[in-house]
Amino acid sequence: MTWESIAATKRQVLRDSIPAEWLIPDTIFPSEDQLDVTNFPRESGFFTENELKITSSPAPTILSHISSGSWTSEMVTEAFCKTAAVAQQLTNCLSEIFFDKAILQAKELDAYFQKTGKTKGPLHGLPISLKDNINVIGYDSTIGFTSLVNKPAINNSTIVDLLLEAGAVIYCKTNVPTAMMISETVNNLFGRTVNPLNRSLTTGGSSGGEAALIAFGGGRIGVGSDIGGSLRMPAACTGIFTIRPSSGRFPNCQSRACLEGQETVNGVIGPLAKSLEEIVLWARVIIGQNPWIRDPKCLPIPWRSVEMKERLKIAVLWNDGVVTPTPPVARALKETVEKLEAAGHETITWASTEHTEMLALLGGIFLADGGKSVRKLLEPTGEPFRPEMKPYEEANDIGVYDLWQMQVKRNSLCKSYLDRWNEAGIDAILCPTTPYSSVKHDKFAYAGYTCVFNLLDYPAVSFPCGIKTDKAVDTPYDDHQALSDMDAQIQNNYSEESVHGMPISLQLVGRRLSEESLLAMTDLILKSITL
Amino acid sequence: MTWESIAATKRQVLRDSIPAEWLIPDTIFPSEDQLDVTNFPRESGFFTENELKITSSPAPTILSHISSGSWTSEMVTEAFCKTAAVAQQLTNCLSEIFFDKAILQAKELDAYFQKTGKTKGPLHGLPISLKDNINVIGYDSTIGFTSLVNKPAINNSTIVDLLLEAGAVIYCKTNVPTAMMISETVNNLFGRTVNPLNRSLTTGGSSGGEAALIAFGGGRIGVGSDIGGSLRMPAACTGIFTIRPSSGRFPNCQSRACLEGQETVNGVIGPLAKSLEEIVLWARVIIGQNPWIRDPKCLPIPWRSVEMKERLKIAVLWNDGVVTPTPPVARALKETVEKLEAAGHETITWASTEHTEMLALLGGIFLADGGKSVRKLLEPTGEPFRPEMKPYEEANDIGVYDLWQMQVKRNSLCKSYLDRWNEAGIDAILCPTTPYSSVKHDKFAYAGYTCVFNLLDYPAVSFPCGIKTDKAVDTPYDDHQALSDMDAQIQNNYSEESVHGMPISLQLVGRRLSEESLLAMTDLILKSITL
Repeated sequence: MTWESIAATKRQVLRDSIPAEWLIPDTIFPSEDQLDVTNFPRESGFFTENELKITSSPAPTILSHISSGSWTSEMVTEAFCKTAAVAQQLTNCLSEIFFDKAILQAKELDAYFQKTGKTKGPLHGLPISLKDNINVIGYDSTIGFTSLVNKPAINNSTIVDLLLEAGAVIYCKTNVPTAMMISETVNNLFGRTVNPLNRSLTTGGSSGGEAALIAFGGGRIGVGSDIGGSLRMPAACTGIFTIRPSSGRFPNCQSRACLEGQETVNGVIGPLAKSLEEIVLWARVIIGQNPWIRDPKCLPIPWRSVEMKERLKIAVLWNDGVVTPTPPVARALKETVEKLEAAGHETITWASTEHTEMLALLGGIFLADGGKSVRKLLEPTGEPFRPEMKPYEEANDIGVYDLWQMQVKRNSLCKSYLDRWNEAGIDAILCPTTPYSSVKHDKFAYAGYTCVFNLLDYPAVSFPCGIKTDKAVDTPYDDHQALSDMDAQIQNNYSEESVHGMPISLQLVGRRLSEESLLAMTDLILKSITL
Repeated sequence: MTWESIAATKRQVLRDSIPAEWLIPDTIFPSEDQLDVTNFPRESGFFTENELKITSSPAPTILSHISSGSWTSEMVTEAFCKTAAVAQQLTNCLSEIFFDKAILQAKELDAYFQKTGKTKGPLHGLPISLKDNINVIGYDSTIGFTSLVNKPAINNSTIVDLLLEAGAVIYCKTNVPTAMMISETVNNLFGRTVNPLNRSLTTGGSSGGEAALIAFGGGRIGVGSDIGGSLRMPAACTGIFTIRPSSGRFPNCQSRACLEGQETVNGVIGPLAKSLEEIVLWARVIIGQNPWIRDPKCLPIPWRSVEMKERLKIAVLWNDGVVTPTPPVARALKETVEKLEAAGHETITWASTEHTEMLALLGGIFLADGGKSVRKLLEPTGEPFRPEMKPYEEANDIGVYDLWQMQVKRNSLCKSYLDRWNEAGIDAILCPTTPYSSVKHDKFAYAGYTCVFNLLDYPAVSFPCGIKTDKAVDTPYDDHQALSDMDAQIQNNYSEESVHGMPISLQLVGRRLSEESLLAMTDLILKSITL
């Protein structure tokens, strides 16, 4: 079989796994030029009031409805499966569908609850979606490669076992870019996932299927992963929340990686959701399960209570010295900082001192094996390198000695960054998540605002700051002094028309392994800016 | 200058840095065939009663004498400097000497105490020695290479800053093998450090200078490091205590490594001392200083209180499937297990399932750069590879892709080991620290019992179990069924005469990052076996 026929068959199997009653009738199927499809559930008449009520309720509300007996997990699970099925038809966000299994699982949870009067765990009955690299026994984890089709996982990822033990229902896996190493979500197997807020724009990557699903309403909490911005860029493109935790906080054991064994920068898993409280819920539940007992890389750090200052000292990275945020993002950052100062927080300007060197290093790290890891996944089916993966096609293995020198350099940059943090006495860094609110397909060119914090291993929240792109004010810069060729390219490609109305997200960065205080600071900041 | 002349000059400088009054007079200088020199301080008449009282007091006693004003830091520091000077003359254990600076520092601490009535910190006035790789501004960190002579450090290691802030006095650095990658302590620059308990035997490596100094009495607590057993093997050879902590617990920032940037197995620092309480003291003080604030690799895990069970479940690794412990070590393990069972602890036999694979992997990891890191430190002065370093001379850079595959393999072995631990429900593993009590120079051939726990990143204590080698009972095995060529070689080399009277150490291993409970379990075990 050719890679094209493998892909065609896999896509057909995926289509066939949607129950006929959840296929959108032609009569109400949105036309391709309808860009924003997020109102489809509410406006199409395809969903019942009850379904809409369920899918628009935050996870804690859903959990309390289930644990009080007013909702069943079955009805909740059906509502999300149906919405996910519709999301798939409108955004192509899924990679594996197991709604039947999910509903069976929900029925079992309901039976358990009815019999015992108890919930199975803190996520009893709540559907949670999973990025494609997270292994579920019996289902593929293709990460966008045709060579990995029909190679179902024989182990669950540790996070899946923990979710199931906490009572969560798993119902689908979501699309990623090839190798999860592109900032958009597109591959030769499933094609492209589009942004439900504007289908002419990217949903970001690599957790882009997950972000599209959650932003559409096909789930409340999804699990994604991040090695250079793969949680934060999609969250920002779709206006939802996420946290990239430091490595070792959440279990990433027995999941599929593309650059397997690459540990100079560690991939991590994290949640995506429409609210900060749902992010906190997920984080607290997972850490409450002592993941370090079974994941050798997890750290025995329990969920810690935080004493918050009322007044933060926030360092603002206005730009990273390489790329200027596009006009809406620059404006959102400025307005947010003004609100924070008005609310009594102190802000200082944060220099981009180490950023250029960190970026140069990062590029080298991911290519250090000469693209062999990627090539070995393409070769079995003769699948071609996608154009976005050209650097992997052209790279050479640099050898271990040079990799070690890169790690020496990384350590020295980490030390220098930490010293600056200590000297400034700051609580957090505030900066863009990406230079974009979102951007047209094939135009997401720069992950520099996110990936540096992977190198540093600092936790980073991406949150929608409440400001949307406005074509009336967010016009291109006049006489822009480009910081780099990349900056010139991004500003040249910028069009206020194309991103009008898109939400803008910012990134808040904390000290390494301080997820609790970072989330608490984000909460404080959200309250400060919505005063 | 040739490497030989650099080495000769450096050694002369070292000799000249010992004050004339601390040079042992010829009249009482022990002859070369006096093997055990540990009684020299007490028997030679070269030390005052007061000096002997100081150097034989555990660190907590010394600290309380200083903080109550009955001893000064100056007199304590002088006593240890003098004893260290003598240790150097008898065992060649030092690499850098700064007694003058130490006494100055002690005087300043005394003045501070007299003026304020307060101590500067929890280690106020206590001399602490440092392994050569730990940087002290103004002094070399040669790690045994002539090319690194006269290249004084421009930064302190983070641990040095913490020790100084805690009020400790630093007075000398201690010898290591070339690159710290030999299991004995010998290099082309300073030559060989010998075991003060029996100078015909090795002091182990690579923290062998440190172990010799502490075992002799030239310090109470020393700081060493461990990447494959470098704390535990010397501690075992000299009958003292140590803990190899998990990576990230104690700061290893801004110290000299040889395989710089090698992070597949992380080097760590740890204490060496004559008692467990001194190990605990050091650990608690360092972690109490929140080292994660300034070392980017340190984990924000405070010193935790431990609730101890009275009855432990201990897995006993009788042998690792590759090398049988020599007769005294096998006997000590057996007698210790019998005592533990008699004291009510449960013991089970621990299988060596993953050990052979872990060992194969470890060899490859350290050689993965083709010995380039070592070669680059030899070349500037034309210094030859030592015979012990032959594998480094002959290795080839394996390339990044293959290194990543080794890391994949390592992760899978770590997961499998942890799964076994959980299934067995054990509290700790008890096993030999090394196959030897100690061994003749040039004959320490096997680090397999220690280095596997570096790969796993489990904390491991080495403790003298109270049993000594006895030539009357520890005769060579009859008809030994060798587990491997290495095993055959080690048993063939074994001579009960040569190690008669040497203390025997065992290793207790805990879960990753559980240093507090591991130390508490060691304490419980010590009490159980000395009942």
